[in-house]
Amino acid sequence: MARYPKPMARLIEELVRLPGVGPKTAQRLAFFLISQTPAEVQSLTDSMLQAKQRIIYCSQCFHLTEEDPCPICSNPKRNKNFICVVEEPRDVIAMERTKSFDGIYHVLHGSISPLEGIGPNDLKVKELVARIGPDVQEVVLATDPNVEGEATAMYLARLLKPIGVKVTRMAHGMPVGSDLEYVDEVTLSKALEGRREL
Amino acid sequence: MARYPKPMARLIEELVRLPGVGPKTAQRLAFFLISQTPAEVQSLTDSMLQAKQRIIYCSQCFHLTEEDPCPICSNPKRNKNFICVVEEPRDVIAMERTKSFDGIYHVLHGSISPLEGIGPNDLKVKELVARIGPDVQEVVLATDPNVEGEATAMYLARLLKPIGVKVTRMAHGMPVGSDLEYVDEVTLSKALEGRREL
Repeated sequence: MARYPKPMARLIEELVRLPGVGPKTAQRLAFFLISQTPAEVQSLTDSMLQAKQRIIYCSQCFHLTEEDPCPICSNPKRNKNFICVVEEPRDVIAMERTKSFDGIYHVLHGSISPLEGIGPNDLKVKELVARIGPDVQEVVLATDPNVEGEATAMYLARLLKPIGVKVTRMAHGMPVGSDLEYVDEVTLSKALEGRREL
Repeated sequence: MARYPKPMARLIEELVRLPGVGPKTAQRLAFFLISQTPAEVQSLTDSMLQAKQRIIYCSQCFHLTEEDPCPICSNPKRNKNFICVVEEPRDVIAMERTKSFDGIYHVLHGSISPLEGIGPNDLKVKELVARIGPDVQEVVLATDPNVEGEATAMYLARLLKPIGVKVTRMAHGMPVGSDLEYVDEVTLSKALEGRREL
């Protein structure tokens, strides 16, 4: 990049640090940015700074929020005795989109992954245990249906059951709208295992 | 995105405007940004604003620069009578990397594309013609080897030859390090056509 004018080279270097952005993409983004009007660039940088300044984590559920506690935790209509445990804030958004969960959340901010050196202490596990009061009726584990997510769910189930709370796991099965032929065998056998009477 | 806190939703909206960034990537970038330290975010936004403020186009060759004329145009060691015409500033960088061109550049900022409604008047064509003084010995057309680039080269050749300047085109042929078996037929026939005696 030696031949780019310095501010351009610095911009490319900064952009390369973004996830999924390599040198080619960074160049393309940099060219796009300098082709924008000053007001457009300002609008983008303002939105970055404001998001960074204003967004905090809810002290109860660790979801993203502007106020603490977050609108979900402070909503009197939500069932405070039903906690859904997810890995990431984006999972809360996905669950909320279903409009079929009226409880509250707990965001772990990751999953147990010995390969990446992430253990329970790197996640909001202690905070979850602290939330399980005598009124909590059920904790549904909605970690991702992959190796790390399953391991995390197993770990949490073993940790929470002795407290005396009902611990459940999201059902595995065939995705709605999918084609049986293309569903992988593990999912298919889980779907068979979890079959229901009609 | 209704459920994201407002600053987060706004940031995602802004990021979606970047080229090659869809809603999923924008979400991922937004989560990454708010996970960074305030200083890191500041450093990124500063680099964007500074690049936008400081980078201008050279009034002679239309390459990106901090000073006008650009370091290439103002370098007394460069041959001012040999002009290489390219489509984009990044093409100048690619040519400079070869270290085998000692002339100066002219950046068209695009190529002729009737499908996209881009004609010669949308490019720096007039400015190129104005640069062809009596001293200019050769103009090498280094537009991209695709339909638009070829059309642009043909158009420029027809425009510049009557002025009395030598107009050349970059050679087509087999990329160095490639495998003959995998070279497409058009390139192969061009390579055959342009064969040289050893």
